[in-house]
Amino acid sequence: MKNRYVVIMAGGRGERFWPQSRLKRPKHLLPIVGDSAMLAQTIDRLEGLVPTERIFVITNEEQKESVLETCPSLIPKRVIGEPVGRDTAAAVGLAALLVESEDENAAFALLPADHVIEDGAGFRSVLSAAFEAAESDDCLVTIGISPTFPSTGYGYLQKGEELNGMTSRSVSVVDRFVEKPDLEKARQYLDSGNYFWNAGMFVWRPPVILKEMQKHTPSLARGLQELKETWREIGSLADCMDKVYPSLEKISIDFAVMEKAERVVMLESDFDWDDVGEWPAIARHYPADLQGNVFKGEGVAMDAEGNLTFAESGHCVALLGVKDLIVVQSEDATMVCHKDYAQEVKALAQEVARKRPDLS
Amino acid sequence: MKNRYVVIMAGGRGERFWPQSRLKRPKHLLPIVGDSAMLAQTIDRLEGLVPTERIFVITNEEQKESVLETCPSLIPKRVIGEPVGRDTAAAVGLAALLVESEDENAAFALLPADHVIEDGAGFRSVLSAAFEAAESDDCLVTIGISPTFPSTGYGYLQKGEELNGMTSRSVSVVDRFVEKPDLEKARQYLDSGNYFWNAGMFVWRPPVILKEMQKHTPSLARGLQELKETWREIGSLADCMDKVYPSLEKISIDFAVMEKAERVVMLESDFDWDDVGEWPAIARHYPADLQGNVFKGEGVAMDAEGNLTFAESGHCVALLGVKDLIVVQSEDATMVCHKDYAQEVKALAQEVARKRPDLS
Repeated sequence: MKNRYVVIMAGGRGERFWPQSRLKRPKHLLPIVGDSAMLAQTIDRLEGLVPTERIFVITNEEQKESVLETCPSLIPKRVIGEPVGRDTAAAVGLAALLVESEDENAAFALLPADHVIEDGAGFRSVLSAAFEAAESDDCLVTIGISPTFPSTGYGYLQKGEELNGMTSRSVSVVDRFVEKPDLEKARQYLDSGNYFWNAGMFVWRPPVILKEMQKHTPSLARGLQELKETWREIGSLADCMDKVYPSLEKISIDFAVMEKAERVVMLESDFDWDDVGEWPAIARHYPADLQGNVFKGEGVAMDAEGNLTFAESGHCVALLGVKDLIVVQSEDATMVCHKDYAQEVKALAQEVARKRPDLS
Repeated sequence: MKNRYVVIMAGGRGERFWPQSRLKRPKHLLPIVGDSAMLAQTIDRLEGLVPTERIFVITNEEQKESVLETCPSLIPKRVIGEPVGRDTAAAVGLAALLVESEDENAAFALLPADHVIEDGAGFRSVLSAAFEAAESDDCLVTIGISPTFPSTGYGYLQKGEELNGMTSRSVSVVDRFVEKPDLEKARQYLDSGNYFWNAGMFVWRPPVILKEMQKHTPSLARGLQELKETWREIGSLADCMDKVYPSLEKISIDFAVMEKAERVVMLESDFDWDDVGEWPAIARHYPADLQGNVFKGEGVAMDAEGNLTFAESGHCVALLGVKDLIVVQSEDATMVCHKDYAQEVKALAQEVARKRPDLS
């Protein structure tokens, strides 16, 4: 079997999970769902598919230390800190250079650090087939998540022609990348059975993705070439990140490549998936009491319904006569938010940071 | 000037201020309003009226240590711990024995430990006149608080004939002790100008109150006589509290004596007064923001109105899209309660205690 690599994208700041998430302790370093950090779960999920010594993590410079503390199985040199975030295309380019430097034609998977997938075996089976596809053909492979509700929060992949014999699983051409739809369109997508959520999981080989970048985003490709050459000159990647990385074009991989590339294929998921993008999503993963209250950590409710609480170990959140609230405790800050305002948590965190920069 | 004593009644458990208040840290040991513990404020307020060496505190055995830690100016021997609470009449009887043992005819004031009075000078002036009255006549002196709204939460004193020349201030006979009224009656009381809140502040001399107890509650008086004799035999009050105190009749001073005694007089307050009986009362003592939010400790509000928060030093409570909530943070428990449910906080605290006895 060929060498396979995984590059985990762990650059998010996760302000939507304030006050648990902070600059130095973002969502992927927290046990938002489950008992260990989301990143640790992501790494554990790869066991048997890709060995730890072939896992890279791209995070930001500030979080690097916390990443290594939280996931001690990672090899320190393989945790790369971005001096500044330059969106996903630059990170994908960096990932391609990293893998290329070890095995120039090895396929690698790009995976988000902070998603919930309970069915690890199902995930590995689909990802394994995605590796097969990327290894057998000069294509860009994506994972399409079978939608379970008409989400307006995700982009979609429109499934086209099925390609036979590429892998042990069915592979389809992706006809189109679709932006987040309105509710009516989302319903049509769901009913058609032809649209899949774009989970931001990709598999390809370095020369394939770098060539596509050159074709569709030549300015970024030039920047990456400069990074590669500076790295070769200096000898240490860390030393040249500060120098070149901040000048890379800031653009998402979807805009830069995926929506324009010709040979994009898709593996359909048959595992569960949740990107848990904001506090209310947590409630999907824990049992509710008879009044619809969900407690992560210790909680007590009296005359209370439809609430969600998050408490650190040893702390108890007690609710009385309240409805549809999200209550999140942390050591130095507590948030009480109506569920309808969950998308404003980021703005609240920024407001708090103006008064108390130490809480961001 | 004669010796004057003060006995502070600090026996409350303050469950209505959970999760800040606990068995060992009740309301009077917390800075519920202001920056120091309510008991410390009560003691400070007496400066210039009665010296600290003539202040007794009756608390419960469990809180005794915390009382001394919180108010180090108190003389340890003068902080008496009840082995069990026996309601106010027993505590008043104990207070009378304490004062009598030092100066058998000295007037003493009985004061609650946890009320808010900002106008210390006004308070001392009224209390001084109350001492004069108690020293010049075999009467029971009460303080009547001029009502500012038709409260249904307090008992009332119905003012009768004015007695001239007793003290520097006007003294009136109390015609009647009135139980907590309904709203309609409370409005009539307020309009009449003849009814005053019974704040539970009394001044009298030991022989006067003990004689009234003998007359109206002979069983309690017998118990107190036994306590006095045992104390004299053993020589140490602390050693005989366990033995005799638990068997004293459990009855309030209002029922036991005040409602039945003939010579009860009243001094009218002209100072502010608030017994801050539950969380919402705190909002009366702090400025609100334009949306009616009141923060004790640090707080931030976005799209939030009419809320009250309480946070310990260094902790920040952030509100988003919520209305009319009470949010109280403590190190190991957080409460979120709708204002309409403030009177149920005690029940909530008891519910929590069933799961987590350490939080009571």
